[in-house]
Amino acid sequence: MYHSFSKLHSFTSTFFEKTGCSKKDAATIADVFLAAELRGIGSHGLIRIPDYYQLWKTGRLNTKPRMKITHETISTAVVDGDNAPGMLAGVFSMETAIKKAENAGTGWVACRNSNHFGIAGYYAMMALEHDMTGICLTNANPLVAPTFSITRLLGTNPIAIAVPAGKHPPFVADFATTPIARGKLEVAVKKGEKTLYGFVQDKDGNPTDDPDILRKGGSMLPLGGDIEHGSHKGYCLGAGVDIFSSLLSGAGFGPFVPPSVAYLPPPDGDNGKGTGHFFGAMRIDAFREVDEFKTAMDKWIDTFKGAESAPGKPDVLIPGEIEREQEKINKSRGIRLIPAVIDELNQIAAGLGMDTRL
Amino acid sequence: MYHSFSKLHSFTSTFFEKTGCSKKDAATIADVFLAAELRGIGSHGLIRIPDYYQLWKTGRLNTKPRMKITHETISTAVVDGDNAPGMLAGVFSMETAIKKAENAGTGWVACRNSNHFGIAGYYAMMALEHDMTGICLTNANPLVAPTFSITRLLGTNPIAIAVPAGKHPPFVADFATTPIARGKLEVAVKKGEKTLYGFVQDKDGNPTDDPDILRKGGSMLPLGGDIEHGSHKGYCLGAGVDIFSSLLSGAGFGPFVPPSVAYLPPPDGDNGKGTGHFFGAMRIDAFREVDEFKTAMDKWIDTFKGAESAPGKPDVLIPGEIEREQEKINKSRGIRLIPAVIDELNQIAAGLGMDTRL
Repeated sequence: MYHSFSKLHSFTSTFFEKTGCSKKDAATIADVFLAAELRGIGSHGLIRIPDYYQLWKTGRLNTKPRMKITHETISTAVVDGDNAPGMLAGVFSMETAIKKAENAGTGWVACRNSNHFGIAGYYAMMALEHDMTGICLTNANPLVAPTFSITRLLGTNPIAIAVPAGKHPPFVADFATTPIARGKLEVAVKKGEKTLYGFVQDKDGNPTDDPDILRKGGSMLPLGGDIEHGSHKGYCLGAGVDIFSSLLSGAGFGPFVPPSVAYLPPPDGDNGKGTGHFFGAMRIDAFREVDEFKTAMDKWIDTFKGAESAPGKPDVLIPGEIEREQEKINKSRGIRLIPAVIDELNQIAAGLGMDTRL
Repeated sequence: MYHSFSKLHSFTSTFFEKTGCSKKDAATIADVFLAAELRGIGSHGLIRIPDYYQLWKTGRLNTKPRMKITHETISTAVVDGDNAPGMLAGVFSMETAIKKAENAGTGWVACRNSNHFGIAGYYAMMALEHDMTGICLTNANPLVAPTFSITRLLGTNPIAIAVPAGKHPPFVADFATTPIARGKLEVAVKKGEKTLYGFVQDKDGNPTDDPDILRKGGSMLPLGGDIEHGSHKGYCLGAGVDIFSSLLSGAGFGPFVPPSVAYLPPPDGDNGKGTGHFFGAMRIDAFREVDEFKTAMDKWIDTFKGAESAPGKPDVLIPGEIEREQEKINKSRGIRLIPAVIDELNQIAAGLGMDTRL
């Protein structure tokens, strides 16, 4: 079943208004949710609204946040998200980074007391219209064991990078520092399929193809899979994202990142403040004349698109290309939600006294 | 055969003086070469001196560079390395980033017209004594094919991140965005051994365990190995490093990075200026009180060191730990060079009229 962008945007926006958000804030949150849906990253789309709803109901999400800058220099800031939905803290922080960059050439913002914020790429892409490159990192619920270990200490900690081009669309990379996203494991569980080796390990650190292993004490592996294939590099990346996101801002690190679902308890004790993100914006003209850069970036893209494919393989992709194609399709055709998600969202809507149904 | 640090430092320094470097510049270059040797990264140590020698003899390395800042804002700069040995351009650029950060909170420097600069971690670590985090990226000779492709378009493009701690030594990650370093393939070739699958592909894009495949039209794979295991993420990382290192500075990108060996010709035509690097320095106190940060970083390290190891596996490593252990050993025991390398260096020393022999 397909829904139009505007229908889903309106539903999401109304839902967040009902939980106490201002009209403007609710629209901002809906923008980020819908960007995920349009770009074909449904795992970060409306399927998550029930989690947000439960967190709000249990008082773990502040829909009337007073976000503020608590520390700053000409090129940096620390933002306290006041336990806002992550989208609000994310947009506020990235806007701050962009303002800093306008003045200082670059802007770097660490954010604490935030929550799950959807797709990291959304915030990185905010830089593009300002002729800046955008960067966004976030930590997340611990699911990943460092190399050699069986303890879940890191999230799938994504990295997003957006770079403007000229005649070509921008370069937009947005990827977890694990071989696959957790959502793909869930899909395999639901289909009753095995997964490939190299994604997860069992509770004793043995390789396994059981996608349901996280519920049995297992853990995800860092990008690279095993040490022979460079899992220590994936661990370094995930660790770097965690440190930049949490230790610069004072958020909870690694195992102390608050769960983004209400059925898991928040971390005990004085272990940092909420979920942490890190944002960067660099003005292109702080390095080089913008047109010159964009011409070079177009040449970069042409060079990579011109690479020879292996026999039987598709053309080389420029990061962001698949998501852009998906966006075109989803805008014209509509967005497909899983029936079970639609039912759940309609129940929530009924409970909140919303007029709209999906 | 073991040589003392001071013997090898003096040899390296004298060699670079003989090629025309000032005493100070030669000592700086020797510092970076010896840091690689001490840290157990011999692939970036004195084994490379013959390559530098050949590049210098063919006029492709400028040992009397006039490096300069060609563009800047309060938090950024572009450095033209004037075709210097990469160590000189690297140290100058990172010093510039640190000065910018002292003033603006953070400093970001893109460098062009540089050359091979040794270990990226050296420059990232320069930030530590200033209570800053350091970042260093560089592009490199194209050996890696993007996902789906058989064209070598990217280098092993490393990422280095250094973060100060309190009672603990710093976090220092320095890793290629490929499953293994090229040097490990060479070792396997010399030993007549096969390599593992997942590192390289043949000229048609088929998986192979032949470590000598680069000489037969093959290519290295990005971190992740194959698309199922996330090679597109390794490709995104390598691409991001390339773009930041070359397009912000105007250096040659991807296939246009000049070879770091004289037996391969420089790239034809107007395709950017030399090898490119990217450097970052962020003052800790631009985000948070330094002591508070270091206490949190110590707790991060304690938490990760306290993770449970899988049965039969070693303790979890903090990035930089192995290299630091190696440094202690190599400082007290001496540094081991391969006999063939010693012979080659002694021949070069004789040719240059140096008194010292190894």
